[in-house]
Amino acid sequence: MGNADYEYPSIMNGESAGTGIHRVEIPPPQPFFKSLKNTVKETLFPDDPLRQFKNQTPLRKFILGLQYFFPIFEWGSRYNFGFFKSDLIAGITIASLAIPQGISYAKLANLPPILGLYSSFVPPLVYAIMGSSRDLAVGTVAVGSLLMASMIGNEVNATENPALYLHLAFTATFFAGLFELALGFFRLGFIVDFLSHATIVGFMGGAATVVILQQLKGILGLEHFTHATDVVSVLRSVFTQTQQWRWESAVLGFCFLFYLMMAKFFSQKRPKLFWISAMAPLTSVILGTILVYVTHAEKHGVAVIGELKKGLNPPSIMDLSFGSAYMTTAIKTGIVTGVISLAEGIAVGRSFAMFKNYHIDGNKEMIAFGMMNIVGSCTSCYLTTGPFSRSAVNFNAGCKTAVSNIVMALAVMVTLLLLTPLFHFTPLVVLSSIIISAMLGLIDYNAAIHLWHVDKFDFLVCISAYIGVVFANIEIGLVLAVGLSLLRVLLFIARPRTLVLGNIPDSMIYRNVEHYPNTNNVPGVLILDIGAPIYFANSSYLRERISRWIDEEEDKLKFSGETTLQYVILDMGAVGNIDTSGISMLEEVKKNLDRRDYKLVLANPGAEVMKKLNKSKFIETLGQEWIFLTVGEAVGACNFMLHSCKPKSTTDDASQKWSNNV
Amino acid sequence: MGNADYEYPSIMNGESAGTGIHRVEIPPPQPFFKSLKNTVKETLFPDDPLRQFKNQTPLRKFILGLQYFFPIFEWGSRYNFGFFKSDLIAGITIASLAIPQGISYAKLANLPPILGLYSSFVPPLVYAIMGSSRDLAVGTVAVGSLLMASMIGNEVNATENPALYLHLAFTATFFAGLFELALGFFRLGFIVDFLSHATIVGFMGGAATVVILQQLKGILGLEHFTHATDVVSVLRSVFTQTQQWRWESAVLGFCFLFYLMMAKFFSQKRPKLFWISAMAPLTSVILGTILVYVTHAEKHGVAVIGELKKGLNPPSIMDLSFGSAYMTTAIKTGIVTGVISLAEGIAVGRSFAMFKNYHIDGNKEMIAFGMMNIVGSCTSCYLTTGPFSRSAVNFNAGCKTAVSNIVMALAVMVTLLLLTPLFHFTPLVVLSSIIISAMLGLIDYNAAIHLWHVDKFDFLVCISAYIGVVFANIEIGLVLAVGLSLLRVLLFIARPRTLVLGNIPDSMIYRNVEHYPNTNNVPGVLILDIGAPIYFANSSYLRERISRWIDEEEDKLKFSGETTLQYVILDMGAVGNIDTSGISMLEEVKKNLDRRDYKLVLANPGAEVMKKLNKSKFIETLGQEWIFLTVGEAVGACNFMLHSCKPKSTTDDASQKWSNNV
Repeated sequence: MGNADYEYPSIMNGESAGTGIHRVEIPPPQPFFKSLKNTVKETLFPDDPLRQFKNQTPLRKFILGLQYFFPIFEWGSRYNFGFFKSDLIAGITIASLAIPQGISYAKLANLPPILGLYSSFVPPLVYAIMGSSRDLAVGTVAVGSLLMASMIGNEVNATENPALYLHLAFTATFFAGLFELALGFFRLGFIVDFLSHATIVGFMGGAATVVILQQLKGILGLEHFTHATDVVSVLRSVFTQTQQWRWESAVLGFCFLFYLMMAKFFSQKRPKLFWISAMAPLTSVILGTILVYVTHAEKHGVAVIGELKKGLNPPSIMDLSFGSAYMTTAIKTGIVTGVISLAEGIAVGRSFAMFKNYHIDGNKEMIAFGMMNIVGSCTSCYLTTGPFSRSAVNFNAGCKTAVSNIVMALAVMVTLLLLTPLFHFTPLVVLSSIIISAMLGLIDYNAAIHLWHVDKFDFLVCISAYIGVVFANIEIGLVLAVGLSLLRVLLFIARPRTLVLGNIPDSMIYRNVEHYPNTNNVPGVLILDIGAPIYFANSSYLRERISRWIDEEEDKLKFSGETTLQYVILDMGAVGNIDTSGISMLEEVKKNLDRRDYKLVLANPGAEVMKKLNKSKFIETLGQEWIFLTVGEAVGACNFMLHSCKPKSTTDDASQKWSNNV
Repeated sequence: MGNADYEYPSIMNGESAGTGIHRVEIPPPQPFFKSLKNTVKETLFPDDPLRQFKNQTPLRKFILGLQYFFPIFEWGSRYNFGFFKSDLIAGITIASLAIPQGISYAKLANLPPILGLYSSFVPPLVYAIMGSSRDLAVGTVAVGSLLMASMIGNEVNATENPALYLHLAFTATFFAGLFELALGFFRLGFIVDFLSHATIVGFMGGAATVVILQQLKGILGLEHFTHATDVVSVLRSVFTQTQQWRWESAVLGFCFLFYLMMAKFFSQKRPKLFWISAMAPLTSVILGTILVYVTHAEKHGVAVIGELKKGLNPPSIMDLSFGSAYMTTAIKTGIVTGVISLAEGIAVGRSFAMFKNYHIDGNKEMIAFGMMNIVGSCTSCYLTTGPFSRSAVNFNAGCKTAVSNIVMALAVMVTLLLLTPLFHFTPLVVLSSIIISAMLGLIDYNAAIHLWHVDKFDFLVCISAYIGVVFANIEIGLVLAVGLSLLRVLLFIARPRTLVLGNIPDSMIYRNVEHYPNTNNVPGVLILDIGAPIYFANSSYLRERISRWIDEEEDKLKFSGETTLQYVILDMGAVGNIDTSGISMLEEVKKNLDRRDYKLVLANPGAEVMKKLNKSKFIETLGQEWIFLTVGEAVGACNFMLHSCKPKSTTDDASQKWSNNV
């Protein structure tokens, strides 16, 4: 279809074109503090948490407040025996996973194994009172443990100075909790959102790879091992010590790994058999322990856990070393591990809440996680969160409320009080197998393939995180991925799309001519759609890009010789905001157009943009009659005016202005 | 107007609602490398610099290439005697400003005063060949000089170790040039755009304040002075030495300052008298020198410049100390001063180009600035750029081309060869007065007031830069302002506006109900406009915000008891892009709506969004019949379907999915 087909459809329902056009209103000025309040509210309180407190008696407000901070008061009153039966089964199931996993991850963090059990006792109780998820199972996580080992391990050697290392771990846990609490309290939870799905897939996969590589120490029964986590150092460490490899350990390790993988395979085939996979770690530990006890393999190169102290968590509040020289390390470790474990815990909580159709308040969850870690750091626990694997088992076992966490805590308590001696002969290699089997599930190559298909940039972010973690270290991987993700957001703003719009035949609709090739040009009118807010970061770009579009349109018209350009319409529908640099840009574009005797027309500016344009007097300069509600109406008015009146260029008072600045 | 007035206008030109609706097309898949090429081109070559090389003979291409890198070959052929007359006057005028300013700024940078003259000789010649601005006058700048003094001064004391300090200054200039050249060559000029107008106003004002405070040393004739630049240190330094204040120096200083300010005042009143202001610094220097020579005031506490070496720039290429221990300082200083001076130079060039309606290529300018500083660093010059004051004088004096820079360079050459002994008795206090008078023009409080009126956030950025520079140091001020500016961009993405749309009476137009209070609700349909791309950074927020809008709508409908909610339409017109986190968010919103028996409908998704939604199979899940080209058509279809067929909720296969991850 050529330009000759162009026909301007009337929308005015029989009215004349002059009077039926809709005015773009300038919003009434708001008092500064009111608009500030609105902005702060939308930014920090998008979920309007105080809504339910409106129009209530003071007593009711107090109860609602109590229920807000301690959700147990909310669901506790509705608790019944049916729920308890389900929670009991779920709690025992997750305890059977929690005990071996806890010990394994504590070893991964270079901490005494007993800390893994301690950490499955106190924090779940705190979460049960304060947490709002019904499905989250609390415990330590592999990535957090590894991060702690690598960050604190950079400063203090865990084998040479175990007491200092332990104190730093408690202090870091305390700061992680404090940071989480502060994020939640100041409603800054959106910081966690800056870890995108792609970042987390790549980061988790990389961390899992690193954790698996670390397990080579346990599987091969090596005594000396590198402290670095990158793949090159680890493989060099492994292959320079081929003499020290212990086959007994390796055989045992691979047998248990095979068993665990088979259990997982069956559970995946038949979801009802989830308990096979859930129980497998505990049965591995029991089998491995019996095997070592019977064969005395601990004397043949199979390392065992050894003595585990009986009794409940000792207090550790006096071990928090606030004045030490390693304070910065503790704070840094706390912040990094705190954010990472928050990201995991909140994502897990949200996912399950979505499945069961209930709501989770991210900021409230952060407060719960924060309190859990602060209390934990005072009771000999290290970093805990809501691990994905344990929560999924909890969900599949049919948990109803956070009581399953209480059941798990009680089961761990019984273990601590009575059963710790049984773990004396548990071979470390079984723990390594448990970790490897859990970590293999975190390397989500299908997700990476999906990212490649849907969004190449997300794939780049993901693979950068993976490569950064595996070949450099965990922090570099994270910084790389977050940096790339932010770069993308900034590039979206710095290089907004500008599209030429054309008329969709027989309608008032104007759309991108590349996306809809059957659109018609409007003779003498260039319509540009600006795809992002106009900020300092893109105002120079937009100025140049708009002028290039005009040049190209002029060339095209000159070539075809049909008409000359008269109007440039900017569709501001997607321009959510504008700053002073953006307004200067518009002023320059207008001056530039005036000089060429073209007229600038704006279509569909939003409330915020109108307010700013009004305050800066740009509307006066442009003339409010040149601002239209839709592109269609703007084109209609241009067609009406075309050839009947021509805009005049304004005179420059340049020398006046510049001489002020000499 | 109530809901009862709602009337659905037909757009179908007599056709039935089912067939006349426009389809949203899925763009055909593009090969990966083609789309990558397009993205890179739009990001790095928005001005399409190779356009003019298309369809040309090889010889013509060579000439065009030569003209591209050396614009003098382009305008040189059109040069005539009329231009030369104008350029000669302008060149002599700016030389009269350049000589005293050059000496003053070199003192500010703690460098030998002669360097200021050297720097007004070689760099203008380089720029005349390579630069594309016709109005820019090249020279040193106060802020760059001060930055250099403070950054290098942190490491090396200029009075104790002048040779090392000088070598570092040359090396820093070299790196500034190299960095500018690299930015231009790799077309990364947009980095400069991240210094917003508000940042520059605040930063320049702060830097000017700091520079003025530094001049108290010269005005009061103090010998010992703090090396810090913050206001507290400087004032403490001044007021602890009240005993050392020299009244002779102060009186002389204030007299000349008064003279300079009066000259400026007259020039501002009558733009034609610009030369009074332009000549004032040189006349001050001449008067001051004569005064000191006659009264022998140099023996009564008025410090003078002293011996200035005669002769042209000595080579300094051997002084570039690449191997030294202060290499990092030199590189850091080079990058910071390079970016700051680029920002000033390019802004100045662009402003004047806009006034005279010609085009400046930012990246080409960067290459010119870079070469100018690299050549400068090898010929005893330090950091140069296009200073605002000198360029404005050049413009007002009627320059036509860069030949005015050549004239200035020749005038400075004559001074260097013959006239340097005349500056022996020039009092330093006159130089301080010249600096103060120039700096007062940079404190642009009117611009700050304008920012406050138009955009409160820009004002915050501006004032943060000012306070940071004045109370802490220049770098902190800069980091603060850039950080805040970026935070705003990120917040725009992290907290996009979501607006409820209503129907504008008697039209197919749907707009924000708050902005247009006379809009009508569509019964049973909630229309939300999403105001930003859907990225990882806002997907959680949008999920919660959309669900809150739905809850509120439900409450409202329950209260009024009229109808129930059936459709949620998302207007995607402003959603320029979506990533995989965003798609997951849409999937979750859809599941959530399915569960409540509402139907999700999309209106007006762009090409990029359609492509991603198609690749991720979301279009299949949603059904392509639920994607419409406009909100109007979507509402039409909803009204058509309303009550006639209800969407069914899909079953969850949750347990299947989760057990995979245990």
